Amino acid sequence: MTAPTAPYLSAVSRRAQEIAPFHVMELMARAAALEATGHDIVHMEVGEPDFPTPAPVVEAARDFLASGHVHYTSALGLPRLREAIAGFYQEHYGIALPASRVVVTAGGSGALLLALGALVNPGDEWLVTDPGYPCNRHFIRTFEGQAKAIVVGPENRFQPTPEQVASHWTAHTRGALFGSPSNPTGTVLRGHELRGLTEAVESRGGTLILDEIYHGLTYGGCDESVLTYSQQACVVQSFSKYFNMTGWRLGWLIVPEAFIRPVEKLAQNLFIAPSTPAQHAALAAFLPETRAILEARRTEFRQRRDFLLGELLRLGFTIPAQPEGAFYIYADISAFSGDSFAFASRLLDEAGIAATPGLDFGNADPARYMRFAYTTNLERLAEGIARLEKMLGR
Amino acid sequence: MTAPTAPYLSAVSRRAQEIAPFHVMELMARAAALEATGHDIVHMEVGEPDFPTPAPVVEAARDFLASGHVHYTSALGLPRLREAIAGFYQEHYGIALPASRVVVTAGGSGALLLALGALVNPGDEWLVTDPGYPCNRHFIRTFEGQAKAIVVGPENRFQPTPEQVASHWTAHTRGALFGSPSNPTGTVLRGHELRGLTEAVESRGGTLILDEIYHGLTYGGCDESVLTYSQQACVVQSFSKYFNMTGWRLGWLIVPEAFIRPVEKLAQNLFIAPSTPAQHAALAAFLPETRAILEARRTEFRQRRDFLLGELLRLGFTIPAQPEGAFYIYADISAFSGDSFAFASRLLDEAGIAATPGLDFGNADPARYMRFAYTTNLERLAEGIARLEKMLGR
Ligand SMILES: Cc1ncc(COP(=O)(O)O)c(C=O)c1O
Ligand SMILES: Cc1ncc(COP(=O)(O)O)c(C=O)c1O
Repeated sequence: MTAPTAPYLSAVSRRAQEIAPFHVMELMARAAALEATGHDIVHMEVGEPDFPTPAPVVEAARDFLASGHVHYTSALGLPRLREAIAGFYQEHYGIALPASRVVVTAGGSGALLLALGALVNPGDEWLVTDPGYPCNRHFIRTFEGQAKAIVVGPENRFQPTPEQVASHWTAHTRGALFGSPSNPTGTVLRGHELRGLTEAVESRGGTLILDEIYHGLTYGGCDESVLTYSQQACVVQSFSKYFNMTGWRLGWLIVPEAFIRPVEKLAQNLFIAPSTPAQHAALAAFLPETRAILEARRTEFRQRRDFLLGELLRLGFTIPAQPEGAFYIYADISAFSGDSFAFASRLLDEAGIAATPGLDFGNADPARYMRFAYTTNLERLAEGIARLEKMLGR
Repeated sequence: MTAPTAPYLSAVSRRAQEIAPFHVMELMARAAALEATGHDIVHMEVGEPDFPTPAPVVEAARDFLASGHVHYTSALGLPRLREAIAGFYQEHYGIALPASRVVVTAGGSGALLLALGALVNPGDEWLVTDPGYPCNRHFIRTFEGQAKAIVVGPENRFQPTPEQVASHWTAHTRGALFGSPSNPTGTVLRGHELRGLTEAVESRGGTLILDEIYHGLTYGGCDESVLTYSQQACVVQSFSKYFNMTGWRLGWLIVPEAFIRPVEKLAQNLFIAPSTPAQHAALAAFLPETRAILEARRTEFRQRRDFLLGELLRLGFTIPAQPEGAFYIYADISAFSGDSFAFASRLLDEAGIAATPGLDFGNADPARYMRFAYTTNLERLAEGIARLEKMLGR
């Protein structure tokens, strides 16, 4: 009964064939192999906080689990959690948001899936940035839409402008998916920029989705939500980054009133519901004692950023835009190499440093850049810098 | 800045507009309203075990959580869990399965999403059954495929035949998605039927996806996996039902070798990874002490089925196919009503019983059937039957 394997490959959907793998995975596999043979690797490729989940959040989950009653919740999430999230917008941003517009999801990833599933028709164009979060174009592709890249560069802190929205808009464009603070560059959209992008998209009848998953992780200055400027925008958020809860797989999506019902139908059918233990854990994420822990960690992230930024500049890297948030520095490596993928390999083999080549974030100028993540402690960052210095012969 | 709401509705994708809501939700909302005003409702609509998660599974999660280190796992899941699942196939079914073919997912729902995302191209036809799990056609629709219904009835225990596969197959058909034990009918495919369906689909160059999410919950007789008959079939499974872990959102997908890589790319991009606490919990799901608990519960489910089946027959319902698995009885109500939706409303209002009208499972003959779930204890089932008897004046 066993048929040969090869013919079945043709059964794989075009979508799944076209979706690009993460190039950093290859490097990570090599890093793991090196570690298995006793090498020490400084990890600056990892896109998640190294901190444990805050203790009050863990305790809330453990308390909830004691009963063992871990059943489905409603598709849009626990009403109490939706209200806590809405309350967070009031408290943190001064935005009055009805809890009915809050959709609890399986991470920011689940929020992106629901938002784009509810908005993208086959053939629709959606604007994204290059460089940007690599999954964005794949989410759009998943629903048979076309991601259209706006090439962003140092001249506007790697963020798109209303003029670029205008010049990239066609009769097929239905919306834009941007991020602030940005992965991979860490740059943050200011209030007037959010307003301008909102107007540029909405005046054309489109929908703006803002990925605000690194909100909270900003180091001085602006942390404004697009919701201050638009009630029609969708916001993707997550407990993964600021709240240090990656593995729980919990996030949320804010939608305008008109999208609640379609998003609910999609969520019921595609997911049934988000994780129940994670939702009970997250109820403790907004407690003052949790916030105190998170703010202390934010201070530590800022120290790491300051250290790593200073050291990379000292070693001769160019950092063309000040990283103001998230936990990434996007460095121009042209002083050392014209090929960031080769440079990343060399870093790994010669210096035992894992970092992510630009190739994973776009196609415009990937060979020029690398992303360094400061998701490891200051001591390890210092060790990495010492090795880098030695390798570069500085 | 607030634009009017109405025009934005047009932004909702056709997919999200077309996906049908669960009709039972309306009844459930009314049931909740009745309960809020002090009425007692017997719940026979719920599609999840009423039991708590087995204690060893809960303890494994609580132990894991103590450290607070809840980070992303690899996209395909914890290697140890993938091996435990592969081991379960060896132990339970005598099937040798390499762990590399096991993909850990966010519930059976995540498995369906990945499988169909990796297989469905726009315009492709996929065979499903009517009645069947309502989300199936929406998963196919999500990826712009077309679900083509095979109407199944009492004459073949509400299961499809190879002849039906043949007669429904067109030049656009790419595969079939069937379930055993079936939701809503509880009927189980025998070994020779699995073999026949496999051959019917694969000889036409198609892929068979078998939803085996109610496996383990069978009451006497067959519990064979399609993997005994095909190495090219995909299997959707879950920790939700037999393992009593609905709220954890964890399941798995078995894929042929050739699909591992495309499914991995999709999983990386759409989900990042399944829930980490749930995966650590699930490591305890295959322990002998957990299995002992689950087998005792299976015995209780069987007692409930025997009781409910006998009583429904006694009251004059027709049960056209013996329910052999899952926790559902699909009852023909024509002795009492020609409209199962109206009958369900009457049940709720006059007898305080919530159950699901056929409308949620298909379009072929929905007014004739209702699904009764025995996901509540014998005492409550007896209470429900007493009320039903009174209402029907028997
Ligand atoms: C920009 C951005 N959006 C969304 C996500 C999704 O994260 P999660 O699903 O854990 O919330 C990530 C994760 O790295 C990200 O960097
Ligand atoms: C037939 C069938 N398949 C899949 C699922 C998905 O369940 P889960 O995502 O909890 O594994 C269900 C849930 O009711 C079901 O009945």
